[in-house]
Amino acid sequence: MNIYIACELSNLEKKIIKNNLKKHNLYFSKLKFKKNADNNFLKCEIVFGNIPPDWVKQSSKIKWIQLESTGFAEYSNVKKNFLNKEVIITNLKSFFARQVAQTVMAGIFSIYRGLDNFTLLKKEKIWIGDPMRAKLEILNDKKILFFGKGSINKEIAKYIKIFNCKYSYINSNSKKSSYINMIKKAEIVICALPGTTKTKMLFNKELINNLSKQTILINVGRGNLINEKYLIKKLKSNSLKGAILDVTAEEPLRKNNPLWSCPNLILTQHTGGGYKDEMVNKVNFFLVNFQKYLKKNKVLNKINPLKGY
Amino acid sequence: MNIYIACELSNLEKKIIKNNLKKHNLYFSKLKFKKNADNNFLKCEIVFGNIPPDWVKQSSKIKWIQLESTGFAEYSNVKKNFLNKEVIITNLKSFFARQVAQTVMAGIFSIYRGLDNFTLLKKEKIWIGDPMRAKLEILNDKKILFFGKGSINKEIAKYIKIFNCKYSYINSNSKKSSYINMIKKAEIVICALPGTTKTKMLFNKELINNLSKQTILINVGRGNLINEKYLIKKLKSNSLKGAILDVTAEEPLRKNNPLWSCPNLILTQHTGGGYKDEMVNKVNFFLVNFQKYLKKNKVLNKINPLKGY
Repeated sequence: MNIYIACELSNLEKKIIKNNLKKHNLYFSKLKFKKNADNNFLKCEIVFGNIPPDWVKQSSKIKWIQLESTGFAEYSNVKKNFLNKEVIITNLKSFFARQVAQTVMAGIFSIYRGLDNFTLLKKEKIWIGDPMRAKLEILNDKKILFFGKGSINKEIAKYIKIFNCKYSYINSNSKKSSYINMIKKAEIVICALPGTTKTKMLFNKELINNLSKQTILINVGRGNLINEKYLIKKLKSNSLKGAILDVTAEEPLRKNNPLWSCPNLILTQHTGGGYKDEMVNKVNFFLVNFQKYLKKNKVLNKINPLKGY
Repeated sequence: MNIYIACELSNLEKKIIKNNLKKHNLYFSKLKFKKNADNNFLKCEIVFGNIPPDWVKQSSKIKWIQLESTGFAEYSNVKKNFLNKEVIITNLKSFFARQVAQTVMAGIFSIYRGLDNFTLLKKEKIWIGDPMRAKLEILNDKKILFFGKGSINKEIAKYIKIFNCKYSYINSNSKKSSYINMIKKAEIVICALPGTTKTKMLFNKELINNLSKQTILINVGRGNLINEKYLIKKLKSNSLKGAILDVTAEEPLRKNNPLWSCPNLILTQHTGGGYKDEMVNKVNFFLVNFQKYLKKNKVLNKINPLKGY
């Protein structure tokens, strides 16, 4: 079988793939994607990695794409191509949950225990000490509102169990009237919704302005879930305890983006899902799914670009 | 009864004490401690707060001191005075455990998820993004070595249960030969021992040099548990994953202290025990203990300055 591999791999990871797929023809992409599909790609039935969506319609062979991400919004725009060709797409749903959940914990604890401030004070060699204590908080008994009940939020819920927090889940079908009062009282709001037409700009002016001064707002879903204009206003006027954004509307952020200069904001630069064994584990996932595909078993994590999840 | 109150209190906290102790004479200290004991102090049988240890021998009335700290090393130096006078001393053992444990969690997650770096990058408006991912880690399955089995480490052990970490406890009676091999393999070393003659400089050159490059060293015990000279060398040569110091030999740190410029070091400026409700809860603890004292019940948290804990 011809397999096109479009992930950035170390030599070790390439070796693992080669050892496991000896009987197959492997084409490692140079990862310089042009408008016209790579000739090697056009020979392949299987793809591992996020190739340009436009390439799909150029191929007469493509049957299965294993994405190396959870999100696939860019593929829903060309859904017609996929549907005509009946290409299977699988993603890495849940693969990033532990990492993202731990980035969220890092952010919450950092804000409550003042670590972001201490990092900046250390850079300036400024000792404040005791007067900082009264500004610190603990996680116990906090009221948490989860937007989304996917693998990330469920993972976070497991971690915080010991802290006796009260929490509720909101999903993208919930009516605003049902949760607007909850959002006013929430001390931590964690948004891990997928990026769909329903969720776009869900956190609009009204929702953001209803967050209290005691609230931490966290977005680990998609950059377009939040109207950043109002979040920036809220942060710059010190009307929010803090915010943690793993995803932003603009990525990478340009120097003139006002988010850089917002106080009490932690920007994790879309690394929430990352960790040192990430790539090798992605490879292992693909290899497992490849065996299923080969044996005509049901592949894992098949997605429906029309539904958006 | 005459009560001397030597804590820095807000008006609200003073009011709580006044309302609860209407029948007693309260003397609020001006907190400017001189060598000669304050005249008001000399009238009092009970003290709430950390008065200068030298004052004790000047008093003929003093019977009970409720400290507002867990540590009391400074009182053990004048233990003779206490023993002659049979003064009861109580401390705030366990009172700070939750806060300190959450500062430790903040530090660990911050290092594993890169938050200290992201805070500095934000200040400089520098986007790195994807290349940071391979440097991040997760807490799952880490090997942890706890020095001390007191309330702080037990609290941390509760929090990390969900992450399937392997951990062992070392106490101040453990022989070095029994744990030197464990320290080489430990990925997180958390020191929460009290400051006694036994524990002083426990983390000496040998112990620090045996820490691996993958290790995070944390000290939330006392500043003199670690020979900072060797820790600084280790950090400056990038031979340690990171360190988190809530306590340091010098406090406050002067501008020329080399700790300020160590990479991968989080300095929390001895605030680990702090949080916004700290003072009001200290007051509540004192009021509960006061009722016990009054009714000749056993007071809580009586300490033995000779033993050091």
